Amino acid sequence: MATPTTTPSIPGQPWLKKIKWDEHGLVPVIAQEAGSGDILMFAWMNREALAKTVELGEAVYWSRSRKKLWHKGEESGHVQKVLEIRIDCDEDVVLLKVEQAGGIACHTGRHSCFFQKFDNGDWHSVEPVLQDPATIYKDAKSTGVKPAPPKKTQPKKDT
Amino acid sequence: MATPTTTPSIPGQPWLKKIKWDEHGLVPVIAQEAGSGDILMFAWMNREALAKTVELGEAVYWSRSRKKLWHKGEESGHVQKVLEIRIDCDEDVVLLKVEQAGGIACHTGRHSCFFQKFDNGDWHSVEPVLQDPATIYKDAKSTGVKPAPPKKTQPKKDT
Repeated sequence: MATPTTTPSIPGQPWLKKIKWDEHGLVPVIAQEAGSGDILMFAWMNREALAKTVELGEAVYWSRSRKKLWHKGEESGHVQKVLEIRIDCDEDVVLLKVEQAGGIACHTGRHSCFFQKFDNGDWHSVEPVLQDPATIYKDAKSTGVKPAPPKKTQPKKDT
Repeated sequence: MATPTTTPSIPGQPWLKKIKWDEHGLVPVIAQEAGSGDILMFAWMNREALAKTVELGEAVYWSRSRKKLWHKGEESGHVQKVLEIRIDCDEDVVLLKVEQAGGIACHTGRHSCFFQKFDNGDWHSVEPVLQDPATIYKDAKSTGVKPAPPKKTQPKKDT
């Protein structure tokens, strides 16, 4: 969580006020890989998450299930370096252009979360698993990234 | 609106049931241009909108402000031909890969709705207006597309 010393006036910052936060104080966020154009994932931010993202230069989302800030990659090491931030015409959706550490954004070990394609009346997984999720956390541990493995009771998406 | 004769069993279709619709029966939708990879816009669908999108092969959204189905391009002529539909790992977000008629997705006359970029502590419009919005509707009228011009009381995004 951001502390008062690092982000003393988040609510008052004009650039944050421009965004139309929803009734829960959130805004939808699309993360797109800058190099490939691939859409990696979709998540949500509150004011603090967006301010923290700008401050760190890495994607920080708001986990709706865990009800706390979620620095993407905090467990997996798969952080997202933010190269560009955009908002849409209605100023109620954020687009991040990012570099994806490890080339894996999804908790399933795939490049992108959007790996299920509609075809012949049903959904089919069409993207390969690049790394076994179990080893993602093992590797993160060995490289010094926050070592907490994902618990089964945690939302799987918060990697 | 879909009629009972064209979509008799929407709620029961397994591929629609797989999606985790939110408490309002909606799902967020990202529209990405297939050729360029550009993210064009963000909108919402209900079950009927997604079923209609599959049926027509063109994007049909749910307008939250007008509370009705919105066949994208119904007023502007800027329809979106749907080449591919994907869902994410949590099955609660839809990604459309589309061909954008006229190369303009935004009601402002720009290619993409995401034309405001964060830089030096504020948001800046960084994409050109390709066509005056006033002429978009004029042109749509002359080519036989539904001629209703946008009213000032209508949400501007529903083009």
